[in-house]
Amino acid sequence: MKKYKLALVGATGLVGIKARQVLEEFNLPISEYAFFCSSKSAGTKINFMGKEYIVRELKEDSFDEGFDYAIFSAGGETSKKFSPIAASKGCIVVDNSSAFRMDPDVPLVVPEVNMKAAFKNKGIIANPNCSTIQAVIPLKALDEKYHIKRVVYSTYQAVSGAGKGGVDDFTNTQKGLEPKKFPYPIFNNCLPHIDVFMENGYTKEEIKMINETRKILERPDLKVTATTVRVPVLNSHSESINVEFENKFDLKDVFSTLQNYPGIIVEDNPSENIYPLATHASEHNEVFVGRIRRDESVDSGLNLWVVADNIRKGAATNAIQIVQKLIENDN
Amino acid sequence: MKKYKLALVGATGLVGIKARQVLEEFNLPISEYAFFCSSKSAGTKINFMGKEYIVRELKEDSFDEGFDYAIFSAGGETSKKFSPIAASKGCIVVDNSSAFRMDPDVPLVVPEVNMKAAFKNKGIIANPNCSTIQAVIPLKALDEKYHIKRVVYSTYQAVSGAGKGGVDDFTNTQKGLEPKKFPYPIFNNCLPHIDVFMENGYTKEEIKMINETRKILERPDLKVTATTVRVPVLNSHSESINVEFENKFDLKDVFSTLQNYPGIIVEDNPSENIYPLATHASEHNEVFVGRIRRDESVDSGLNLWVVADNIRKGAATNAIQIVQKLIENDN
Repeated sequence: MKKYKLALVGATGLVGIKARQVLEEFNLPISEYAFFCSSKSAGTKINFMGKEYIVRELKEDSFDEGFDYAIFSAGGETSKKFSPIAASKGCIVVDNSSAFRMDPDVPLVVPEVNMKAAFKNKGIIANPNCSTIQAVIPLKALDEKYHIKRVVYSTYQAVSGAGKGGVDDFTNTQKGLEPKKFPYPIFNNCLPHIDVFMENGYTKEEIKMINETRKILERPDLKVTATTVRVPVLNSHSESINVEFENKFDLKDVFSTLQNYPGIIVEDNPSENIYPLATHASEHNEVFVGRIRRDESVDSGLNLWVVADNIRKGAATNAIQIVQKLIENDN
Repeated sequence: MKKYKLALVGATGLVGIKARQVLEEFNLPISEYAFFCSSKSAGTKINFMGKEYIVRELKEDSFDEGFDYAIFSAGGETSKKFSPIAASKGCIVVDNSSAFRMDPDVPLVVPEVNMKAAFKNKGIIANPNCSTIQAVIPLKALDEKYHIKRVVYSTYQAVSGAGKGGVDDFTNTQKGLEPKKFPYPIFNNCLPHIDVFMENGYTKEEIKMINETRKILERPDLKVTATTVRVPVLNSHSESINVEFENKFDLKDVFSTLQNYPGIIVEDNPSENIYPLATHASEHNEVFVGRIRRDESVDSGLNLWVVADNIRKGAATNAIQIVQKLIENDN
């Protein structure tokens, strides 16, 4: 089997640290790894697969080394500047920032949902927003069978989604210290405010969920609305998803459709208090779906409770799975 | 002005303690207060309005003392047994349990919404579920103008809603101790499970929200669905409410309708990070409404973020406001 060269950009951030762990677990046919970061963290020594690496500053000539794949998790500005450079040198970039997600030339990919789009990449593949990734997997499973008419999202998002600053705020505001990342203490509070506010009163996170859901499901006119909320949970996002379908459904069929779909674990046994939980989903790569029940307020409605590790499946794992599938397709 | 005798049943629980505080603040024309509890807490000495009282065990002859009003916050079983006894002796009971809420002979009352129903009481008036009270106030304001078609609730409910056991779990699971009230640690978690599960997969809390919303709004066929979730917040429930109306609306008109409705404080200025928060709503008697924005996924849709102190407006304050209005009407 062919061996590849992979670069991880943003190797010292929360997602970068998790990506290193997931790369070790996946053990892809990669002969050479390289780790990049900003000048600030350059020189950091890391241990990866039993070997010591030095994380180097990302520079314009970094991709002259001839990488096959690069995973970017270093923020929008770094992606905007360096992804096209990497792509121009024949490296396929899986970009975790929001920089290219809505670019019509860039596929926005969740492997379980639309891997076909990734194979048509022009050098850059966008990794969707964490809260969108976990939602579209069960939605795709159900859209194929019952055709979705409308989706109402309400999210319960973990602080790790805001990076190390979010995690620090969680710890510090517990001790009564002032918040630095969020505008208010996240401890003992729910903040209906993720990313910046737009002119129409929505947050950018809400607009991302709406637009990215449409693009990934290839349903550009799908009716979607969202309220995204930060909750005092360290890791794993939870989501209350209300779905209306065009077609009638049998609830048992919904269960088996979800159970048989790749990447989903159904946890739904109310009599035994079995339902998805943030603390249980953390450190797993799957999306957990439960509280599956008919919504009687519309003809063909369904309520779901969907939980996933936002740093794994919502970021690092999804990007690495894309690379994995590209490699499989190349062999 | 006439003076009244009032009994507080369940005076030592979380709601009872808050009811004593709210009664002091409201300073109603009451000449005589009495405080009752179970045999377990009987004998507890409390200070109320500068005077020491002994909390007495509630007995079948307790209402022989001739009370005008009683507020019950001692659980469903106590209410079922003692409310009819109190009512039979001419005392008007405001019952905070779920025992009588759906009884067609018992008005279910939020003073800002349907006080008229309270005036037709037959001795017992039910205080609605906490999560319903805060939702129906803005919904009533809007239903009057635009006629609601459908409501989708997703709640973010504080541990105080589960009483002292919930608060203890919050504190103890933070320290790594085992939960006692909830099936899983509430610290660092969101539990999509409030009250018991029903046969249809819904929790009793969800069914309460659906049925009580219909009864209070006098819209028995209103389309409502709910997902109710416990979050690691000590006090004040937050709610993501998605509403679809029959009539078109102007968003400015929605703002002014809510601003002018009694009991509502609109907090909505995204550019200044102004939106309702659990920590800000606590210790207030009003319902805070924000994140008011058009939902473009239906013809006439609206998203709201609604927060209130579940022990005050969701329980103690609402009950005391009912008594206050009954007294005003009697004079």
